[in-house]
Amino acid sequence: MIKPLTINTTRQGLLNITSPVAAIVRESNLHEGLCTLFVQHTSASLIIQENADPSAKRDLEHWLNRLVEENDPLYTHTLEGPDDMPAHIKCALTATSLAIPIAEGQLALGTWQGIYLWEHRRRGERRNLVIHLGG
Amino acid sequence: MIKPLTINTTRQGLLNITSPVAAIVRESNLHEGLCTLFVQHTSASLIIQENADPSAKRDLEHWLNRLVEENDPLYTHTLEGPDDMPAHIKCALTATSLAIPIAEGQLALGTWQGIYLWEHRRRGERRNLVIHLGG
Amino acid sequence: MIKPLTINTTRQGLLNITSPVAAIVRESNLHEGLCTLFVQHTSASLIIQENADPSAKRDLEHWLNRLVEENDPLYTHTLEGPDDMPAHIKCALTATSLAIPIAEGQLALGTWQGIYLWEHRRRGERRNLVIHLGG
Repeated sequence: MIKPLTINTTRQGLLNITSPVAAIVRESNLHEGLCTLFVQHTSASLIIQENADPSAKRDLEHWLNRLVEENDPLYTHTLEGPDDMPAHIKCALTATSLAIPIAEGQLALGTWQGIYLWEHRRRGERRNLVIHLGG
Repeated sequence: MIKPLTINTTRQGLLNITSPVAAIVRESNLHEGLCTLFVQHTSASLIIQENADPSAKRDLEHWLNRLVEENDPLYTHTLEGPDDMPAHIKCALTATSLAIPIAEGQLALGTWQGIYLWEHRRRGERRNLVIHLGG
Repeated sequence: MIKPLTINTTRQGLLNITSPVAAIVRESNLHEGLCTLFVQHTSASLIIQENADPSAKRDLEHWLNRLVEENDPLYTHTLEGPDDMPAHIKCALTATSLAIPIAEGQLALGTWQGIYLWEHRRRGERRNLVIHLGG
């Protein structure tokens, strides 16, 4: 079973999307299975991260922004803005697809795990995900 | 269903493999499902990236080559050549497996997404992938 | 089918978990299918790496420790110890889930591939994985 999920982001950074994904899993009535998320973009990615302390999320964003700088003289792909080439690199370093088992009708996430959409463009965008639910 | 896919690479870098993967999906006659790619090597990896502008691909290759340098004095694993240990590290930072939903009989890729095999050895190799198609 | 797998780690680094995963695959009696591993933590991750030469494993650990330093002045999330924020970043750069096809009743790993749990905390922890086996 395939379900679309559209998320409007408004700025660069990690956005917790656990709730809408969990809702799709609940509606599927699958007791056991696998939920696979796929993001249909090359400037936004997926990640499982700590959901408790917002400082962990912030440090992660800052660290990756420092590793993958804007306006790096190495870049030749610059027509789409200074945040575009860094966005592609950040996608390469994180995940485009993510698989989470379903157990007892729920996502088998650990206590401190949340599912995040990582928007890498500064302004945000309309982001389309495709979710596959299998037995 | 399991299908092998062998790709001969000739040099380091990203190689677009969307067409052969899409052909395997078409032949499967699956209307909805999940296509999982797995690469059976530790010096080549998988990635979804922009398929439009070749400069994005080139910048990505250059950026990763700068991050993961050859002849780093840190390396002790050097017997298989100066590109071998960087290849293992690059695999760790990118993906060995990748899952793409199938919708309406086709890979549910975004408009600008292509599937790439990332060859990390300088000379290229015969690379074996295993593709799983599930409902 | 969902199976839990608990691994007790004793120190930071890569731990080969191919044997217990292969045992679960064997017990499933699946001839063809997909084995998906998921780790329920944000300070340990999954990776496929070379299983032959221990120096490759060691170099990889050292390289990532140099890239993602402890006591980086950038960090504000420091209450859980100097190895905690680096652990979250390392998880972001590696994998939380990993899918490996099953062919002829076995994991379709390449000759030199092993499945590793990467413990990012210095002291080790009790780590819970969830394994999904599908046809």
